[in-house]
Amino acid sequence: MDVYAYFEEQIPKVNGVLDALIPAADTAPAQLHAAMRHILFPGGKRLRPVLAMAAAEAVGSPGERALPLAAAVELVHTYSLVHDDLPCMDDDAERRGVPTVHVAFGEAVAVLAGDALLASAFEVLAKGSSDIAPERVVAASLELSRAAGSLALVGGQAEDLIFDATDTNAARIESVHARKSAALIAASIVGGALLGDADLETVDRLKRCGVAAGIAFQIADDVLDEGEDDPCSLVRAIGVDAARERAEELLATALAELEDLGEKAEPLRELVRFSVRRTV
Amino acid sequence: MDVYAYFEEQIPKVNGVLDALIPAADTAPAQLHAAMRHILFPGGKRLRPVLAMAAAEAVGSPGERALPLAAAVELVHTYSLVHDDLPCMDDDAERRGVPTVHVAFGEAVAVLAGDALLASAFEVLAKGSSDIAPERVVAASLELSRAAGSLALVGGQAEDLIFDATDTNAARIESVHARKSAALIAASIVGGALLGDADLETVDRLKRCGVAAGIAFQIADDVLDEGEDDPCSLVRAIGVDAARERAEELLATALAELEDLGEKAEPLRELVRFSVRRTV
Repeated sequence: MDVYAYFEEQIPKVNGVLDALIPAADTAPAQLHAAMRHILFPGGKRLRPVLAMAAAEAVGSPGERALPLAAAVELVHTYSLVHDDLPCMDDDAERRGVPTVHVAFGEAVAVLAGDALLASAFEVLAKGSSDIAPERVVAASLELSRAAGSLALVGGQAEDLIFDATDTNAARIESVHARKSAALIAASIVGGALLGDADLETVDRLKRCGVAAGIAFQIADDVLDEGEDDPCSLVRAIGVDAARERAEELLATALAELEDLGEKAEPLRELVRFSVRRTV
Repeated sequence: MDVYAYFEEQIPKVNGVLDALIPAADTAPAQLHAAMRHILFPGGKRLRPVLAMAAAEAVGSPGERALPLAAAVELVHTYSLVHDDLPCMDDDAERRGVPTVHVAFGEAVAVLAGDALLASAFEVLAKGSSDIAPERVVAASLELSRAAGSLALVGGQAEDLIFDATDTNAARIESVHARKSAALIAASIVGGALLGDADLETVDRLKRCGVAAGIAFQIADDVLDEGEDDPCSLVRAIGVDAARERAEELLATALAELEDLGEKAEPLRELVRFSVRRTV
């Protein structure tokens, strides 16, 4: 299975939903919509939405069934980038190959664009599609809101900002990764499975897969960023070889949870492998 | 009917839901949770959640049925205050009688606390209560996400920030009010009616009521703040007497939509009157 071909096949569908959702760049307030589109298109790897679609396939549904949730997780991810890049946070000037939103549009618009992207995540999920049972939409919305909340994504970013650069405790580092990165990756997989009508035992299994894969993803990120000065990095704490080994261990845990799902889970397995072993 | 007694009866129920939802101030990350609680308790008037409960009553359900949505609208309102107060926005030092979140906890925590409050709005709504039909929860979530989005609350704030202080066009001012204030007030009423199992014609009627009441509420705010230098204010544009008159006109429009709902809509009528004629 060619994971790049799978990305190429699914990304246009996600982009289509996002493009239909976000008002045109000349719709008032034009600065705000231009800023939202500036960071959303062409966007990054779209790993999370494609994971959501592959998770729906893994439980026996068409990947398209997960599209509302796929678009939603990409919006949550994108909002978090806009706010993380702000001067009061990581103060980054470039993102996805373009100037960050606050550099291009000013700080006030960046805060507001992030806010609107977050709200639109729940809009696209609630709009959903008429053939999804509403209790599945509610369950996915609950997963997504928790993954975005103070005990997950936002909490992880808060701890990352104040992380002690002399702390080499691997468990503490992984606990930040679990919240800042893995929670949304897990919600992508879980949410895709929920919209794909998975039974609850399979949903639990995919959640464990997603958390392990998400932490491994973040370790892989730290390996790729080696040399950058991130205080909360397993590479800094235990060295690059031990960090790679730990990522492989987590990858094996993640893949073990997918063992019983047969051929239809092959795209999800490949994506999970890719997210850990990628070189970009 | 004593509107103050109604507030006193309902507010503890809303606060109970909020208190159970938001992690304790010593739960990690402690700064983040302390900041969320700092602005959320004791909080402001709680007008929006109480409107939601009164709307559920107005359509024949117990007010408690609207509690998940009531808590959600208060969280959206509170998040918007935290972000609006930021140095890059209105740069306010005090709110609800206490230092603003960024003054008390720093800018990064303020951005993150606002983000987490917004996410938690959708969490409390999705968690809902087991006796609400999930399609009603999805419908309320859609209303809320749109009310919070780039064509409503966030868009109104974006336009308010760049509003031309020489612009005296009343329609343009009301259009900002409709987005920045009225959309969330309308969503409170509509969402309460949705969780209260209102038929769709009544929901539409309550939406028109909410929009008119919400614009009138904002005009009343401008009347109360007379002398403050808000560029987007009907008082500045047409004078205090004409502004008061316009608020009364909108109030009559709002109340007309409630005419057929009988005795059970009395709390909602009183709250709508209060929101326009209040002196605090």
